[in-house]
Amino acid sequence: METVSCNNLTGIKNTSPSLVSLRENQKTTIVSVNGVEIGSSKVVIIAGPCAVESMEQLFETGRSVNTGGAKILRGGAFKPRSSPYSFQGLGEEGLKLLSQIRKETGLPIVTEVMDTRQVELVAQYADMIQLGSRNMQNFPLLKEIGKSGMPVLLKRGMMATIEEFLLAAEYVLNEGNDQVVLCERGIRTFETSTRNTLDLSAVPMLKHLSHLPVIVDPSHGTGVSWMIPAMAKAAVAAGADGLIMEVHFKPEEALCDGAQSLNPDEFTMLMTELRKVAGAVGREIL
Amino acid sequence: METVSCNNLTGIKNTSPSLVSLRENQKTTIVSVNGVEIGSSKVVIIAGPCAVESMEQLFETGRSVNTGGAKILRGGAFKPRSSPYSFQGLGEEGLKLLSQIRKETGLPIVTEVMDTRQVELVAQYADMIQLGSRNMQNFPLLKEIGKSGMPVLLKRGMMATIEEFLLAAEYVLNEGNDQVVLCERGIRTFETSTRNTLDLSAVPMLKHLSHLPVIVDPSHGTGVSWMIPAMAKAAVAAGADGLIMEVHFKPEEALCDGAQSLNPDEFTMLMTELRKVAGAVGREIL
Amino acid sequence: METVSCNNLTGIKNTSPSLVSLRENQKTTIVSVNGVEIGSSKVVIIAGPCAVESMEQLFETGRSVNTGGAKILRGGAFKPRSSPYSFQGLGEEGLKLLSQIRKETGLPIVTEVMDTRQVELVAQYADMIQLGSRNMQNFPLLKEIGKSGMPVLLKRGMMATIEEFLLAAEYVLNEGNDQVVLCERGIRTFETSTRNTLDLSAVPMLKHLSHLPVIVDPSHGTGVSWMIPAMAKAAVAAGADGLIMEVHFKPEEALCDGAQSLNPDEFTMLMTELRKVAGAVGREIL
Amino acid sequence: METVSCNNLTGIKNTSPSLVSLRENQKTTIVSVNGVEIGSSKVVIIAGPCAVESMEQLFETGRSVNTGGAKILRGGAFKPRSSPYSFQGLGEEGLKLLSQIRKETGLPIVTEVMDTRQVELVAQYADMIQLGSRNMQNFPLLKEIGKSGMPVLLKRGMMATIEEFLLAAEYVLNEGNDQVVLCERGIRTFETSTRNTLDLSAVPMLKHLSHLPVIVDPSHGTGVSWMIPAMAKAAVAAGADGLIMEVHFKPEEALCDGAQSLNPDEFTMLMTELRKVAGAVGREIL
Repeated sequence: METVSCNNLTGIKNTSPSLVSLRENQKTTIVSVNGVEIGSSKVVIIAGPCAVESMEQLFETGRSVNTGGAKILRGGAFKPRSSPYSFQGLGEEGLKLLSQIRKETGLPIVTEVMDTRQVELVAQYADMIQLGSRNMQNFPLLKEIGKSGMPVLLKRGMMATIEEFLLAAEYVLNEGNDQVVLCERGIRTFETSTRNTLDLSAVPMLKHLSHLPVIVDPSHGTGVSWMIPAMAKAAVAAGADGLIMEVHFKPEEALCDGAQSLNPDEFTMLMTELRKVAGAVGREIL
Repeated sequence: METVSCNNLTGIKNTSPSLVSLRENQKTTIVSVNGVEIGSSKVVIIAGPCAVESMEQLFETGRSVNTGGAKILRGGAFKPRSSPYSFQGLGEEGLKLLSQIRKETGLPIVTEVMDTRQVELVAQYADMIQLGSRNMQNFPLLKEIGKSGMPVLLKRGMMATIEEFLLAAEYVLNEGNDQVVLCERGIRTFETSTRNTLDLSAVPMLKHLSHLPVIVDPSHGTGVSWMIPAMAKAAVAAGADGLIMEVHFKPEEALCDGAQSLNPDEFTMLMTELRKVAGAVGREIL
Repeated sequence: METVSCNNLTGIKNTSPSLVSLRENQKTTIVSVNGVEIGSSKVVIIAGPCAVESMEQLFETGRSVNTGGAKILRGGAFKPRSSPYSFQGLGEEGLKLLSQIRKETGLPIVTEVMDTRQVELVAQYADMIQLGSRNMQNFPLLKEIGKSGMPVLLKRGMMATIEEFLLAAEYVLNEGNDQVVLCERGIRTFETSTRNTLDLSAVPMLKHLSHLPVIVDPSHGTGVSWMIPAMAKAAVAAGADGLIMEVHFKPEEALCDGAQSLNPDEFTMLMTELRKVAGAVGREIL
Repeated sequence: METVSCNNLTGIKNTSPSLVSLRENQKTTIVSVNGVEIGSSKVVIIAGPCAVESMEQLFETGRSVNTGGAKILRGGAFKPRSSPYSFQGLGEEGLKLLSQIRKETGLPIVTEVMDTRQVELVAQYADMIQLGSRNMQNFPLLKEIGKSGMPVLLKRGMMATIEEFLLAAEYVLNEGNDQVVLCERGIRTFETSTRNTLDLSAVPMLKHLSHLPVIVDPSHGTGVSWMIPAMAKAAVAAGADGLIMEVHFKPEEALCDGAQSLNPDEFTMLMTELRKVAGAVGREIL
């Protein structure tokens, strides 16, 4: 890591994370998303579609995850796609649909921002800003989100070490914003049978090093919908403060990531199982 | 993988795993280790020291894990060590100590074999043969263990794909021996805060593809003793049929892997927690 | 890769790279950087400091690499740093210094842009815009740079596959800008003795798949200054169209990446050796 | 690495490599393979088929690489294959064929050994014993080969760090045998467009740390025959003391690794190019 080499050479100043670090006897920071608290003894479930595709898709899915027990709704309006020819999201139109479903269901909204120029716009509609995996080391964006004061869902880069992940969060806190939730979402390894390798050991490690809440994304972490229940339960058993999962009312028709989306029935069934696992580790599902 | 390229070129025959593959409606194969069954609804705990170091160390540790609820005792007599200058194990003397503690506690013994020439010797003392991570593609050894008919604990290579792992098991089954337990023990990635990256998604994936029981080694998987409880609970929640964990009566004095060993009190406390998690996913600890 | 899964599900359109792809009998595209052509039979050397630190540092270094045979000068004004507490670059002040040294030496300037809001500013000063490794999948920035029409130095993400790298370039070409140079700069692997693992096989692979010129960064690729000559020669032997190397007039005092910077004498000596290797593979150094 | 943790805890003794380490002013050790010296200023080319398949295949290929300029013949009699259903090699019959072609061509033979029980047999036929990638940490086999006193071609494990690689060689030297050639053959990474990622930075790094000769295998390193020339030239430019390459008289009919084998004409053409690159870095092809 360049930080280290420069630091070693100059010896001028310490470049390690400090604001994010756990001090003795410190509790997990509570991140409040329009009243929904992440970081308490209660495990928070975030669910929704990968991308906002249409009013019908968003509303059907949003209602079903609300009924199923999700406390925050996810949905992408600006989508980072490997190819310029893939569906890039509905943009502001998607943000408007998100604010409409929030009005109906009462669920706070988390949605991704990809560009410093979008932060102000997205902040007008969303309750929590997601910084995606590919932008974990987009430092101007981290600073801009820090300045916005909005709650932040910071996803671990697929190639980021735990130290780099914490340093990315440090950028946000360094702007005076400590409302950051860390999200493990799978790292890139040699294994090809799953989309990524979900690194659940990141959960106890991050909670050992930092006071920030830690949640897990088993959808991107595996890329395979039938694996989500097993990994979601494992994440809660490992101590996660929450989960973010992709749910689509018709996964087989999704414009993005259908292969890793639960349908509403699968989501509702999983919630029942999660309550048992949470209870077994002395917590409950919010 | 060379298999694939050769296969594609010649088209002569199929080189995919078949004997290990799960057929429709097939149940998990029960592997019986001197009466202890792995692969049933009951989760089996294997515990003990990394290496057999002395009678006192083995007996103190063995008694404590027996009291704590382990059903099989682990302990290495032949140790694969990266450096020729590290402790290499007690050899046959270690095997004799293992058979003595078995007599006292009644716990079946699992111990590693590294050399085709040792298989017969180890089979005389052990109840289950461990094939270690570094030997997962030691094909002559896989065949020899297959011929021995002994129950096998096959550890995933630290850089083996799921397919290669199953093909290694296929070598054993191809010799007429289906008493194979697959063990996820962490893979090698770019992350350096843990010794390996424990790939818990391997648990549902292996159980999806194969009828063989799957267990998890959170000790090698993390390399950090305080992470073991979190990852052990996560493994059970993910559907593991068992756990193998390093316990040492005095971890700070261990000749091998002390940093990743629980002490007897930590092990006993963990067993209590594991019972709750097993219950939450409809299983129990054997 | 999400592209693939979405694509497979919807089947609506092809998301593979096409504009960057090599057609039969197509020659390497020439990228012209203020008159310096990359992609011809002549190998282009880009050199300079990691970051612009001061007038003295930049001018001393710039003059020495000019004398040594570099044809383009590199230097960062906006620096992506893992830690918010590391030197972040001089910003516009750095850009001004770069334009001054260009006036003196005649060397075109390449410098990094990290934010869509900076593109216009940087384009006023630079001759070529660098998109750094951490921003390889910063899609809004790729589009903005595409629209700028400026020559682009696109660095491979440290965990980007060849396909993802080409798709990132496709974003730029899709905006009507084909002046893109691909740069292999090391990928992240399990190996820790070097900063990254320089993947020289990317050179023939990229040139097999694409008409864009390919250069190599042995400085970031290894992170160790004494390894740069060996890897620079290897890169030219493998078919690279150019090299980008960090040179600092006093590496031991560098504020960034001193450990991987050549001093001017080392650079000049290396140029002599590179001329021989280029000749051996039927090329010459520009 | 377990070595480190144990070492740190006990502090009893140093487990770092020492016999393999380069002392000040020490030259590269010359490994003599039946008169062919590896480690001098002359670069040695080893070539031949992946596996010995038949007398015709071996003899046709062996004659052509002899004519083309190879100084040592490679060919596998015992083959490590991921699947038990892939061609496993001709065994002793293959060794006999190898000794016959040696008689005709005068080329020394290098062939792989996979089992401690085979060392004596293979030593009767071969001039140099290859320890393959999958067995790099097969410690009993390393010791047995060390005791044999035979020249050893030690291939880097696909998951082995530079330090682990050197420690594996240390096992051989610790038995009194310093006739060890280190071979970089590609490591496993996330990239899938090549079979492995050839880590050419291992060449200068190994030569910086050790007095043992270092060669490169561009065939396994890439898995793609058309990439071999580029990577072979790069390896020589990076300072390799030799190359080992797969050549087959009819690659399209090979039972193993045909996709990564050169045909005799390609091999001969490559030899001409290699002579130029060797000259450019002050060496020549033996």
